[in-house]
Amino acid sequence: MPLGARAYDIVIAPDAIDSAGARLAAMFPGARYGIVTDDNVASAQLPRLAASLDAAGLAHSEILVPAGEASKSWGHLQTVVDAILAARLERSDILIALGGGVIGDLAGFAASIARRGMDFVQIPTSLLAQVDSSVGGKTGINSSHGKNLVGAFHQPRLVLADLAALETLPPRQFAAGYAELAKYGLIDDEDLFFWLEANYPEIQAGGPARGEAIARACAAKARVVAEDERETGNRALLNLGHTFGHALEKATGYSDRLLHGEGVAIGMVLAHRFSAKLGLAPSQDAGRVEAHLKNAGLPTTLADIPGDLPPTPVLMDAIGQDKKVSRGALTFILTRGIGRAFIEKNVDPQTVATFLEEIR
Amino acid sequence: MPLGARAYDIVIAPDAIDSAGARLAAMFPGARYGIVTDDNVASAQLPRLAASLDAAGLAHSEILVPAGEASKSWGHLQTVVDAILAARLERSDILIALGGGVIGDLAGFAASIARRGMDFVQIPTSLLAQVDSSVGGKTGINSSHGKNLVGAFHQPRLVLADLAALETLPPRQFAAGYAELAKYGLIDDEDLFFWLEANYPEIQAGGPARGEAIARACAAKARVVAEDERETGNRALLNLGHTFGHALEKATGYSDRLLHGEGVAIGMVLAHRFSAKLGLAPSQDAGRVEAHLKNAGLPTTLADIPGDLPPTPVLMDAIGQDKKVSRGALTFILTRGIGRAFIEKNVDPQTVATFLEEIR
Ligand SMILES: NC(=O)c1ccc[n+]([C@@H]2O[C@H](COP(=O)([O-])OP(=O)(O)OC[C@H]3O[C@@H](n4cnc5c(N)ncnc54)[C@H](O)[C@@H]3O)[C@@H](O)[C@H]2O)c1
Ligand SMILES: NC(=O)c1ccc[n+]([C@@H]2O[C@H](COP(=O)([O-])OP(=O)(O)OC[C@H]3O[C@@H](n4cnc5c(N)ncnc54)[C@H](O)[C@@H]3O)[C@@H](O)[C@H]2O)c1
Ligand SMILES: [Zn+2]
Ligand SMILES: [Zn+2]
Repeated sequence: MPLGARAYDIVIAPDAIDSAGARLAAMFPGARYGIVTDDNVASAQLPRLAASLDAAGLAHSEILVPAGEASKSWGHLQTVVDAILAARLERSDILIALGGGVIGDLAGFAASIARRGMDFVQIPTSLLAQVDSSVGGKTGINSSHGKNLVGAFHQPRLVLADLAALETLPPRQFAAGYAELAKYGLIDDEDLFFWLEANYPEIQAGGPARGEAIARACAAKARVVAEDERETGNRALLNLGHTFGHALEKATGYSDRLLHGEGVAIGMVLAHRFSAKLGLAPSQDAGRVEAHLKNAGLPTTLADIPGDLPPTPVLMDAIGQDKKVSRGALTFILTRGIGRAFIEKNVDPQTVATFLEEIR
Repeated sequence: MPLGARAYDIVIAPDAIDSAGARLAAMFPGARYGIVTDDNVASAQLPRLAASLDAAGLAHSEILVPAGEASKSWGHLQTVVDAILAARLERSDILIALGGGVIGDLAGFAASIARRGMDFVQIPTSLLAQVDSSVGGKTGINSSHGKNLVGAFHQPRLVLADLAALETLPPRQFAAGYAELAKYGLIDDEDLFFWLEANYPEIQAGGPARGEAIARACAAKARVVAEDERETGNRALLNLGHTFGHALEKATGYSDRLLHGEGVAIGMVLAHRFSAKLGLAPSQDAGRVEAHLKNAGLPTTLADIPGDLPPTPVLMDAIGQDKKVSRGALTFILTRGIGRAFIEKNVDPQTVATFLEEIR
């Protein structure tokens, strides 16, 4: 990840966790470690990491939070920061985020505010975290007013994406991460999207194409972030599908009814359909996107979400409170077709509301 | 305050609040404002600010917290951030901190994490905030593990120090702020300290020397911060008196028994006495510092603190948890005499404990 003095490596390897101890010992002589993780990852992957740190003679303590989006809360933020202070980790010590995007966002934010900022390392264990959330330095928690509304930009010092960790990831979570992977193709790389369509069976089965897909996604994300770390410009393209997606996540209470990546999958299809309705994009592209995401086991329509959704005005309210608003006008990532997304800052809320009514 | 692209003005004037509206309107076209303040300042100074914003046609909402150090807490941080989001302030809007150091630290931190960072303006109304906390970008809250252990570096866009506001500040608070003012002389400017000694009556009475003293203090702080924004080097000199001071504040429960500036006053005298004991500084200087601070109405010894203090091991524990520690060794700001402070990273905890025992 090229960011001048704050540049960092992204290591993608089957055994990145097993070699973590040796790597960290070389990078941070004398540092102690705090490992933030959740229950699931603690049983599935923490023993490997602990063994690796032990073998390198690195002192470490563990900070456990419950698995799930609900841990991106004020209460758990305070718990993690308090645990950092109780363990007497100092500014020169290292916090490790071992887990999915929830752990990365929570631990990264805690690292950014404990003692006004300590270094941290991302060890993403979900596909979503490996292709998206662990790279780029966005950290944060949710508020009752919406997702990710509280947080900081805080870059990790290192990202270790361990391919073997994905073996214990539940299939539904794998699919959710795949939505963010496909996103990079949809934004500005139709070749990547077509390659994903063709190679999906191998990616799904864990063949060599999986590592390649993750590497291509990280490279795409790193390029966008390097050009616009603070999201004043093109970084907003990464929000393709997210304005609709966040509103649906809010409407389903950030619950198991809809995972983040699932919301993004539906949101990307809606962004394509909305763009087609505005006459900006060919509607066959929306169909092709929907077909591929469905094939990858993802929901693609509002009807795919179990249970009732709130009425359109409530969804519109959530869309308006999403942080990608500027002085009242709605900002959306729209598209001219696969691989041709763009930022539109002047979307009329009424047009969106009408569109939502039509597709319900 | 010279900080490259993030440089900002520090305005010191008798009517800085009254002209705030016009100034902000010119700097931030189209922005809306949230004003964070406490009960005391809300009655004493908020009407002036509200009138000034109203006259300039600027929309504003108010976020009130109780007066006192206890507001630098997780709970009040969440309250302020929630209020920012509830008021739908956006990244391009402005949060105003109207109050003393507590409000500046709390509101500045809230601004740094709401929507991953919004701009804020400091309007310091206590002497301490005008000469110290409003300049330099340190923001934060306290933890049960110690003061200011959670926070961020977040520079304001503008500092407006209103001299008239000091007319409503209680005398004890004025004295506490004066300790931080005198600190700049003690660190590296003996001329400033001697000038303060000579001009104290006029500063105290609110004559022209007051504005000059505040301007000299801000200039001194800005110079140090510009050279070392993130406190990797000389910025630590600003902590003269603070390691002892923070431990005493913790020992007295951050209560009215000991104000921050009062703890700093005692701490600065102790730093001089400890340095003299180590044979580093002439002990007459310690006496001269003590005499001047006492004359300014400040406590200067442990015995001046009402009520009982915990035993020395408990104070030592607080000193060890202070954030200015590096891999276990104690860092102290020591001195070779008035205007000759320096950073010592290898202070033996046992020497400190013995010193504390002797002076109790
Ligand atoms: N910071 C960013 O730039 C960014 C980008 C995208 C998403 N996000 C955030 O990421 C979060 C979603 O991330 P996520 O989908 O990884 O969620 P998650 O962290 O909740 O992980 C999903 C589930 O998989 C489990 N899990 C993770 N790795 C596992 C493994 N190897 N074996 C077994 N179980 C495992 C977790 O315990 C959890 O139950 C959201 O909060 C979203 O806002 C952040
Ligand atoms: N960020 C930094 O760099 C930095 C530096 C030094 C101190 N601090 C912090 O500053 C805090 C202390 O600041 P403080 O002494 O200003 O405390 P404070 O904010 O509590 O103000 C002191 C008291 O004076 C009242 N007050 C303030 N202005 C007034 C006015 N014009 N009229 C009437 N009443 C007024 C307040 O309501 C409060 O009761 C501490 O929390 C300390 O940690 C921060
Ligand atoms: Zn996402
Ligand atoms: Zn201070």
